[in-house]
Amino acid sequence: MTEAAQANIGVIGMAVMGSNLARNLASREGNTVAIFNRSPERTRGVVAAHPEAGFVASETIDEFVASLQKPRTAIIMVQAGAGTDAVIDQLTERFEPGDIIVDGGNALFTDTIRREKAVSPTGIHFVGAGISGGEEGALKGPSIMPGGTAESYKTLGPILSSIAAVSEGEPCVTHIGTDGAGHFVKMIHNGIEYADMQLIAEAYDLLRYNAGLTPAEIADVFTEWNKGQLESYLIEITAEVLRQVDATTGKPLVDVILDQAGSKGTGVWTVQNALALGVPVSGIAEAVFARSLSSHPEQREAAAGLPGPANTVAVADRDAFVEDVRQALYASKIVAYSQGFDAIRAGAAEYNWNIDLGAVSRIWRGGCIIRAQFLNRIADAYAAEPNLAALLTAPYFAEAFTEGQEAWRRVVISATQSGLPAPAFSSSLAYYDGLRAKRLPAAVVQGQRDFFGAHTYKRVDAEGTFHTLWSGDRTEISATDSH
Amino acid sequence: MTEAAQANIGVIGMAVMGSNLARNLASREGNTVAIFNRSPERTRGVVAAHPEAGFVASETIDEFVASLQKPRTAIIMVQAGAGTDAVIDQLTERFEPGDIIVDGGNALFTDTIRREKAVSPTGIHFVGAGISGGEEGALKGPSIMPGGTAESYKTLGPILSSIAAVSEGEPCVTHIGTDGAGHFVKMIHNGIEYADMQLIAEAYDLLRYNAGLTPAEIADVFTEWNKGQLESYLIEITAEVLRQVDATTGKPLVDVILDQAGSKGTGVWTVQNALALGVPVSGIAEAVFARSLSSHPEQREAAAGLPGPANTVAVADRDAFVEDVRQALYASKIVAYSQGFDAIRAGAAEYNWNIDLGAVSRIWRGGCIIRAQFLNRIADAYAAEPNLAALLTAPYFAEAFTEGQEAWRRVVISATQSGLPAPAFSSSLAYYDGLRAKRLPAAVVQGQRDFFGAHTYKRVDAEGTFHTLWSGDRTEISATDSH
Repeated sequence: MTEAAQANIGVIGMAVMGSNLARNLASREGNTVAIFNRSPERTRGVVAAHPEAGFVASETIDEFVASLQKPRTAIIMVQAGAGTDAVIDQLTERFEPGDIIVDGGNALFTDTIRREKAVSPTGIHFVGAGISGGEEGALKGPSIMPGGTAESYKTLGPILSSIAAVSEGEPCVTHIGTDGAGHFVKMIHNGIEYADMQLIAEAYDLLRYNAGLTPAEIADVFTEWNKGQLESYLIEITAEVLRQVDATTGKPLVDVILDQAGSKGTGVWTVQNALALGVPVSGIAEAVFARSLSSHPEQREAAAGLPGPANTVAVADRDAFVEDVRQALYASKIVAYSQGFDAIRAGAAEYNWNIDLGAVSRIWRGGCIIRAQFLNRIADAYAAEPNLAALLTAPYFAEAFTEGQEAWRRVVISATQSGLPAPAFSSSLAYYDGLRAKRLPAAVVQGQRDFFGAHTYKRVDAEGTFHTLWSGDRTEISATDSH
Repeated sequence: MTEAAQANIGVIGMAVMGSNLARNLASREGNTVAIFNRSPERTRGVVAAHPEAGFVASETIDEFVASLQKPRTAIIMVQAGAGTDAVIDQLTERFEPGDIIVDGGNALFTDTIRREKAVSPTGIHFVGAGISGGEEGALKGPSIMPGGTAESYKTLGPILSSIAAVSEGEPCVTHIGTDGAGHFVKMIHNGIEYADMQLIAEAYDLLRYNAGLTPAEIADVFTEWNKGQLESYLIEITAEVLRQVDATTGKPLVDVILDQAGSKGTGVWTVQNALALGVPVSGIAEAVFARSLSSHPEQREAAAGLPGPANTVAVADRDAFVEDVRQALYASKIVAYSQGFDAIRAGAAEYNWNIDLGAVSRIWRGGCIIRAQFLNRIADAYAAEPNLAALLTAPYFAEAFTEGQEAWRRVVISATQSGLPAPAFSSSLAYYDGLRAKRLPAAVVQGQRDFFGAHTYKRVDAEGTFHTLWSGDRTEISATDSH
């Protein structure tokens, strides 16, 4: 049975993310939402559970396509991978030039680039859109990062704006750039999220074992922090997690949860791609490594007897230490975000995207996991200087370092003395000290490389490249033309 | 003109690595070496320059193939990439079942796997062989890491053994495993090399700026260190580099070399692949990041004014500090190698290679950049316990930590206090403390993930997976079947 075209937007895939997004769309004035799922039972279940949505439900892909007004716009919300390709093929066969296919799944941006290239000769628009905020965000208002053509955004923009989270009056959606730009930025968002979570976990660990606070006391500290510079969704929910008492044992839940962190792979993607782009994202990398380290129980068991200090340091002034940890967390967080924005800038240069970094920070203020007041400071920084060489050098952040860098060092030293692992804190500080260093021992590395591989070096006082004849008479020759 | 088949081995590609390898082969009893290069001028030049080699030179690929005895064995030494594929195609068209094609270039192991899969249906053996040691190693004896079939190694083993470096009476070559195993292990070798170089550079920096030694004095320290646990080619050549005085300025060369480190990409590959395998290779990653950080001059310039301590700490006891740095370097080096061997073990499991980790450490004792006495200790560790969960837990290394972990902490603290970046030292220590930790804040991360994404968690006291109804009544439910 073919219905008359009556829906202005369709959603394919009725798992939780898809059905929540469809409900979100349906709840907004002016939208009529077509839905479709491979197994029709699920579609029927969604229709039955949400009569208020007024879904236009289809049991075949042909019906679904016929139920869409032109230009047809369909958002695919299926598990990333081969399933996505299959649905794209089905739609491409049935859609017409000017219609829009949106992949709202967690695709790797290079897949999105490939798919856009395959679809675009048909005249159909293919848009990869990162959607952040999890199941609740999909229902109540996510942060949305669409790529694809500017033309497709004319149709898509108003629809996505209607369902996105709103922060300070602005919908958390912007056209990121062409083809895979949206999924790229979503990937970096997730990488930053890894770093942010790890930093908070390290702050917890230091407060717990070096300052001797209980999880409930740390929850109170975090609730307090949530009123200042560190205000963020992640700080807020961490306080909730730490306050939770396990009903079975009466212990803090955090002491009952197995300390092996899982992951879905987007942190790995972020680091792999930043490496390819030559961007040091050490804070994100250490966060990813901390998770994988935690999930090697056989190694941890074997290493449990290795020597080290008892994990406690008598903190002389507990309040002062808490404030030091707050400063260290804030400084490390600035580094992690600075590295993440560096990766976006490098990705934009590599893939020819014109990405507005300030706009990216603004659409992350709501709907997504890393939402925070802090992002306003980033937006300010890019508004003042769109070509900022590195986010952490912006005046506001430089000032934060002036205020906090000594505390940051004290915290890293405390962790080092007490044998508490703080890889993201210490790596971020090392990055900070590296970036501001007048001279780096990279000169030694260049000397080594020239010695064993004739890789040549540059000089501080002359143009060109040079090589020392290490196995000869050790004179220096110009090597500008030979390598 | 077709010559009678008279060569037992052929080399294609007469750039420095190829011609040096060919000369090495020709210098060994019993070898007659066929050579070929795309542009015949270069072949003629090599023949003219090295009449002692008795090369069988060909100007066409057909001649070259005809000059090889059966089973024909040809080593391709061309720049990794499309050129390699072109030569493989030429040889595959002309070779017969049982013949052997060796790619001795720096191929990514996944390319080697792909190529082996493409060639193997023809009955021809395709062997990816990692060759380490640079131009000099190729000529005088490299460390060789061949993959491919065990059958091909029957022919290839004796030839490669004849040209490999020799350490303690053993040739530095072993059959690593099938298809891409050789290139994989070569990749990890290079990753470890990055870490080793960065650690030495950080040790230099601390001795220079915290202990106030001159480059020449540091060269003497390194020469002294080269007599003990740290004995290695890299320590040896770093001393040479630091002793070098620039003829133009009269300054230490290391002060004249621009402090921006380059790379050829194998460090990036190592980290990207370790990430995919879930292996935390933080020491290698920080080394790669340190190079890329150094090579962003515009960011460094912008960050030069960021606040921090003056880069000097008055070291109370200079000799004690030098010894502390030695201990820190040794401990960090154990971590880097342990992480590298973890990556090999994980790669072997993932790609179905049966890799003898002890044999790998033995063939790295000579010919390659990371050659060192230290590798004997690794061989001993795997001989005593082939299934070692983590190299750093072997009794000999555990003892080194007992001796050195306090010094290691003092050095990281010194760097932190003085604002000297020591990312590889501090990251290795954080890894060490993480692996031996009884409890990790990964439990907090799991709590966060369960809160915002219903990703579930495990408990320390029960089987199964669980989820707390965070937005509901906050009771815990079993989630074993739902995720």
